[in-house]
Amino acid sequence: MIFKRIAIIGVGLIGGSLGLAVKKRRLARVVVGVGRRPSSIRKALRCGAIDIGTKDLAKGVAGADLVVITTPVCSIPKIARAISGSMKEGAVLTDAGSTKSRIVRAVERCISPKTFFVGSHPLAGSEKRGVLFADKDLFIGSVVIMTKTKKTKSPAVKTLERFWKSLGVARVVIRSPEEHDRIVAEISHLPHLVATALINSADKKSVEFAAAGFKDTTRIAASDPEVWRDICITNKKEILRAIGRYERRLARLKALIKKGRAEELRREFARSKSIREKLR
Amino acid sequence: MIFKRIAIIGVGLIGGSLGLAVKKRRLARVVVGVGRRPSSIRKALRCGAIDIGTKDLAKGVAGADLVVITTPVCSIPKIARAISGSMKEGAVLTDAGSTKSRIVRAVERCISPKTFFVGSHPLAGSEKRGVLFADKDLFIGSVVIMTKTKKTKSPAVKTLERFWKSLGVARVVIRSPEEHDRIVAEISHLPHLVATALINSADKKSVEFAAAGFKDTTRIAASDPEVWRDICITNKKEILRAIGRYERRLARLKALIKKGRAEELRREFARSKSIREKLR
Repeated sequence: MIFKRIAIIGVGLIGGSLGLAVKKRRLARVVVGVGRRPSSIRKALRCGAIDIGTKDLAKGVAGADLVVITTPVCSIPKIARAISGSMKEGAVLTDAGSTKSRIVRAVERCISPKTFFVGSHPLAGSEKRGVLFADKDLFIGSVVIMTKTKKTKSPAVKTLERFWKSLGVARVVIRSPEEHDRIVAEISHLPHLVATALINSADKKSVEFAAAGFKDTTRIAASDPEVWRDICITNKKEILRAIGRYERRLARLKALIKKGRAEELRREFARSKSIREKLR
Repeated sequence: MIFKRIAIIGVGLIGGSLGLAVKKRRLARVVVGVGRRPSSIRKALRCGAIDIGTKDLAKGVAGADLVVITTPVCSIPKIARAISGSMKEGAVLTDAGSTKSRIVRAVERCISPKTFFVGSHPLAGSEKRGVLFADKDLFIGSVVIMTKTKKTKSPAVKTLERFWKSLGVARVVIRSPEEHDRIVAEISHLPHLVATALINSADKKSVEFAAAGFKDTTRIAASDPEVWRDICITNKKEILRAIGRYERRLARLKALIKKGRAEELRREFARSKSIREKLR
């Protein structure tokens, strides 16, 4: 599958990795990158993630068969609205946002009926930020969740499914935006909040003794604050549900420790061990 | 520094790694391993972690200049009591337990006044279990916290300090058992409980989508249940304190999400990012 022209809006870690992966696998004749800062565009051009760079959204998406928005979630609907009149007839629009319900609803409301939108979320990334950390192999072996609503058109889903698989994605699954948001609240957003609270509650004098366990558990807490602010704002309901569930489980552990219930504690640890060991 | 004979009680991951490191650096003429199961002793002998293996505590420690107990914390005082009459006069006894106050107090009460006990805690390890995962380089670059009480004798502290450094340990720090327990509650025990609660609260259907973030955050939840049961039992006070502090921080994040306070959320994430980035 080859696109004539792919436009990537946002030339950071995800946008840059996407550009590199598309170029490496020759999935497009031309990759256009749209960035806000000239310095990011220059870096993306220099590392070969894009062929053409521009700050102009309308110019950037003109003539593209596929447009991918890779900016923080809150700006996705605004960008979709801004490019809606400039996109080529029949072009496919997707995004790489970490939350879906609000974004998909908002984008569906504003795009032209002559273009096709399908939400995507590649479950790949890094706590690093910026195109300098872009990696052409970022998507290899990863999972992409794509969303389907009443307005989603099947041919666009098929096109995008093939696109993601061409980048080395191991599995593409289709879910409703609401199902997506419930899943990622548990496996991505909650762990992030847990790591953030862990770092922020630790005494500085203790942190200097941090070994591998603490470092692994809190690695994701070094991620981009704006990205995570937007995620919390746009996936509030499911995140609050996941935190509630988690707090009850932690409270149970706390109660067992307080009462010195050795055998029940052992069982909690054995349970988590058996679940965790199945994840490779 | 060379010991004539070192006895290691417990031939699992820590005991095995200790044996391999001592052998590699020729810190002892003979390394004796004491295990409960013949199969563990056989494996430790086969991988070269020990020279002699026995199930008999008294026989194992006889003639040793240095005895290191590497079993789960709750069994350390019992073992110290059992070997107290068999240890050589002037020998140094230490342990590798993850909690200290209760252990150090109990061991100091039962050992012979002709031997010297100093508590140690190498902040190194793995979620893996057993001598087959032993690693001769496990201690390289790590930190060891040694404990000092009114009963601790300085020459024994010096000897042990040199011993740990000879194994490649980057830093040996001396703390009271209580200070030790407060530090590790925050940087090791709390993260473990957080990871355990995270795994145990997640929906199985969501866990199949787990990506790198979830995996890193929960890696330590695959650790040995008995070890962690003992840690919770013996460091109750400090663990409860650390959980309480953490719960308040998480509740703050939850409240900010509920109220949609974007800027304050961004600040929480920026704070954790800046602290986490300083940890290398």
